[in-house]
Amino acid sequence: MDRHCIGIVGGLGPYAGLDLVQKVFDHTRAIHDQDHVRLMLHSFPSDIPVRPEFLLGLTDVNPGHAIGEVMAGLVRAGADIVGMPCNTAHSPRILDVALERLQAEGAPVRFVHIIDAAVDEVRHLAKPGARIGLMGTVATLQTRLYQDALEAADFVPVVLDSEGCQQVQEAISNDGFGIKASSSPVTPKARGILLEAARRLAETGIDVLLLGCTEIPLALDESEYFGIPAVDATTALARDLVRAYDPARLR
Amino acid sequence: MDRHCIGIVGGLGPYAGLDLVQKVFDHTRAIHDQDHVRLMLHSFPSDIPVRPEFLLGLTDVNPGHAIGEVMAGLVRAGADIVGMPCNTAHSPRILDVALERLQAEGAPVRFVHIIDAAVDEVRHLAKPGARIGLMGTVATLQTRLYQDALEAADFVPVVLDSEGCQQVQEAISNDGFGIKASSSPVTPKARGILLEAARRLAETGIDVLLLGCTEIPLALDESEYFGIPAVDATTALARDLVRAYDPARLR
Repeated sequence: MDRHCIGIVGGLGPYAGLDLVQKVFDHTRAIHDQDHVRLMLHSFPSDIPVRPEFLLGLTDVNPGHAIGEVMAGLVRAGADIVGMPCNTAHSPRILDVALERLQAEGAPVRFVHIIDAAVDEVRHLAKPGARIGLMGTVATLQTRLYQDALEAADFVPVVLDSEGCQQVQEAISNDGFGIKASSSPVTPKARGILLEAARRLAETGIDVLLLGCTEIPLALDESEYFGIPAVDATTALARDLVRAYDPARLR
Repeated sequence: MDRHCIGIVGGLGPYAGLDLVQKVFDHTRAIHDQDHVRLMLHSFPSDIPVRPEFLLGLTDVNPGHAIGEVMAGLVRAGADIVGMPCNTAHSPRILDVALERLQAEGAPVRFVHIIDAAVDEVRHLAKPGARIGLMGTVATLQTRLYQDALEAADFVPVVLDSEGCQQVQEAISNDGFGIKASSSPVTPKARGILLEAARRLAETGIDVLLLGCTEIPLALDESEYFGIPAVDATTALARDLVRAYDPARLR
């Protein structure tokens, strides 16, 4: 019997967790129920303080502690592969604290990193020196999570001006029309803002569009925009999770 | 902090588990991540033997034992409300074994029953004596799970002839075009068979169409067919799970 188990830190937000689970299933070769991977989603949104507020210095409460507890619970329940569909929470100031808690469980476990997965996917689509248009939360962009990783891989990250970034943030988190407030379905306004941001990035002459926030693919789920191939970090993570489970299962 | 937690027995099949999680989220009043319920999905399809084979007498291995282990794991991980998106597995010969294992954990836990949830939903749509068209797996129909529950509630269950039931079964489990083999997207052939079954039931003069298999709403997700209101057992279970968590959260 298959003894691996993928554990997903959900709730960041809840629909991003669901989207990752769907993408893990969609990228698994399966005909019968029994062909699918063993997987747990633990979605405890009310346990985990908001991430941007901490990264932007508006609170001292590091959400990494609560995230680490969720990770530890997944391992205690049997997970040996862990993924977290939230780019912002991969900021080292949060993730390092969470992974320290995870390691304290003392169980063998592999953490699959969403930024690494997304940059690997970019490598399959573009050559060194390529310009990578980047969409994400203000906190993800300000902490340079993707910029540093892309530069280390010899890519040139391209971001919108601060007004453009703020509009993307609103599409994600506005209490009225934002994706977190209305994920199913996403509002036309949120989708429109994100499409406009993608168009503006495309106009700067990028080679790949990187959707570096797990809320964005809830609104933008096509494989290219304005002729530019898109990398969705959630799909990249899903594929790396299936690979970690069993490369032969990857569809 | 909110301490309730919904535990979902997934993997029966995997996409039905995902569909239930989505419906729990969709039926929760929430603007921020933190407004959503605490929820776990444990999807261990390879742990759980196929259900129809047992109910139809083709094997002695009762899947209730493995299902009970999943339920017990959910409770150990913190769940105090448990639901299972698989109608067939609610057959007493399977469910009683699973619930016995669940109770052996000795923790306070509420099991929310999908058949009860669906029949309650029918009560909101139809008066006593109404004719309820029933679609489900051959095993669910042969064990009379829904027929007995509907008759106890003074409804008249209506099922297709055995050829019609067998076609619905094929739409669910055919290795080529069935929903279990291709859930995302469902094949047009599977959807077409289910629509034809719904049409034939509608022609017999039913008052409500009951989708009594959690794979079916992956293909049929409208609120009515051929002018007949449809009750989807997964949505009914999702709403009862949110009610059990906190009635004020129900959207």
